Amino acid sequence: MKKLINQPEQVVDEMLEGIIAAHPEKLKRLPGLNVVVRKEAPIKGKVGLISGGGSGHEPAHAGFVGENMLDAAVAGEVFTSPTPDQILETIKAVDGGKGVLLIVKNYSGDVMNFDMAAEMAQAEGIEVEQVIVKDDIAVDIKEDRRGVAGTIFVHKIAGTAASEGKSLKEVAQIARKTAENICSMGVSLSPSTVPASGKPGFTLNDNEIEIGTGIHGEQGMERQSLKPADQLTEEIMNNILHEMEFSPGEEAAVITNGLGSTPLMELYIVHRKAAELLKNKQIQLKKSLVGEYMTSLEMAGCSITILKLDDQLKSYLN
Amino acid sequence: MKKLINQPEQVVDEMLEGIIAAHPEKLKRLPGLNVVVRKEAPIKGKVGLISGGGSGHEPAHAGFVGENMLDAAVAGEVFTSPTPDQILETIKAVDGGKGVLLIVKNYSGDVMNFDMAAEMAQAEGIEVEQVIVKDDIAVDIKEDRRGVAGTIFVHKIAGTAASEGKSLKEVAQIARKTAENICSMGVSLSPSTVPASGKPGFTLNDNEIEIGTGIHGEQGMERQSLKPADQLTEEIMNNILHEMEFSPGEEAAVITNGLGSTPLMELYIVHRKAAELLKNKQIQLKKSLVGEYMTSLEMAGCSITILKLDDQLKSYLN
Repeated sequence: MKKLINQPEQVVDEMLEGIIAAHPEKLKRLPGLNVVVRKEAPIKGKVGLISGGGSGHEPAHAGFVGENMLDAAVAGEVFTSPTPDQILETIKAVDGGKGVLLIVKNYSGDVMNFDMAAEMAQAEGIEVEQVIVKDDIAVDIKEDRRGVAGTIFVHKIAGTAASEGKSLKEVAQIARKTAENICSMGVSLSPSTVPASGKPGFTLNDNEIEIGTGIHGEQGMERQSLKPADQLTEEIMNNILHEMEFSPGEEAAVITNGLGSTPLMELYIVHRKAAELLKNKQIQLKKSLVGEYMTSLEMAGCSITILKLDDQLKSYLN
Repeated sequence: MKKLINQPEQVVDEMLEGIIAAHPEKLKRLPGLNVVVRKEAPIKGKVGLISGGGSGHEPAHAGFVGENMLDAAVAGEVFTSPTPDQILETIKAVDGGKGVLLIVKNYSGDVMNFDMAAEMAQAEGIEVEQVIVKDDIAVDIKEDRRGVAGTIFVHKIAGTAASEGKSLKEVAQIARKTAENICSMGVSLSPSTVPASGKPGFTLNDNEIEIGTGIHGEQGMERQSLKPADQLTEEIMNNILHEMEFSPGEEAAVITNGLGSTPLMELYIVHRKAAELLKNKQIQLKKSLVGEYMTSLEMAGCSITILKLDDQLKSYLN
């Protein structure tokens, strides 16, 4: 796998340098740490919002640091959790006196390290709440579900709530409600290669795809032959809608997310079918995000995320 | 090459259906045509802006239809120019009485068909101007240079000028000045595959890259072995800056553009070096766009575009 990099061990540091070089008026880096922070942080009287996790999922999460979104993103090495110390420093950097919410994808390393950092911060007198996102329905057991692209909806909705001056408890409650109303599922057409290893995380045959692969290449539900986009979209949508309770007339927001190397053209072809299937079920599509939001390096494939909306979630999303 | 499509001959139509399904409040399709138009078009008293060309370069151009950008995008088949009739209907659909500017990438088919449509529209009494974008310096002869990612700067700057109520002559003049101040160059790490052919447009060995490849896979300047991102970026930047006249203290905007399957992480690593090289030359980087703006289906690689700014261009860009 050819990559536009220098030394594999430098990719995260150099990527973050590039992000800051691109947006110096909006973003800063915590000195010596792989952490991107809003330039204005800490913002007095606003709940601070932090997300993060392993790198390799860009634009998640540094790309979502900004107004009405995150105050900071903590970047681990590629596909590796950030450390508790790094997270603790980030909490301190964004606490504007109203407490800090951590938005964490459900991976054991992330959960453990964010939790440890939260305890350390609380010991220093900072109020901290956490929301764990578990939207990947490819995993059977609900508590073990991974956090994937649906996390972006939590960033956005919690971000708006925080900007409106809501308390930490309120922002955390809205974030948790959002997370509980999200289901996602992906399909992989080709694997990704972690720079330090230089080898693909798994292999697929020429005509083979895998339904439900995780964003770190975790094994999915089933391998199949490549099929037309409409059939594949219907299968994924059926799986997702089977997990959710929708009555006719209810509203949804959708992310049709590229995993890294699938052209936008194909994502729109998938999205078209997803929208049609919602319409057939009389579910109103109120918001669409189509593009790369939560990637897995250069993995080919996509995921579909559905967020069930109510009036509160809809108003914060828009 | 595995693709998330149905029938290859349906990809453009289905993609456009997906775009409209995603943004029904902002976009509409011209009935029976592969054309995406702003919902409000035609806008009285505003110059209409149209771009387009072959499909397969998404988000270009339909993704740039919107406020302060294009009024419409005309989509040909994959890597194929749109037809004069299709362009003519688009001109009629966006003319709000103040005339229409066509922003055309310099490919013979596009130039011919947009020109023919312009003549037909003029014969029907609509004022039409054109700007041809030729930013790809990988081609030696200036008149033959292809239009690539720099076209996005023309969309944006002309879009703002049109929104401010400038006349057709004025918008065309600003668009031409923008186009003349843009140089771009790309590097390909892997080819793209047109859905209807099912075969890659060219081949590269495992460790081979090609400098200057066009966005339809046109042959570049040179094949080389893969090298570190910093060296490659320096080579591309030297080529670009050799073509441009910058004095210390002058200002630039940059697009570090992904060609389809290169992760955002790598684009930021490249952008970091591009920013550093500008700084070394005392060129002020005033605006950065990093991401996929002008792709070539799932080609791996990137391009760098530099726009030399003056006060006028800067004010329209921001």
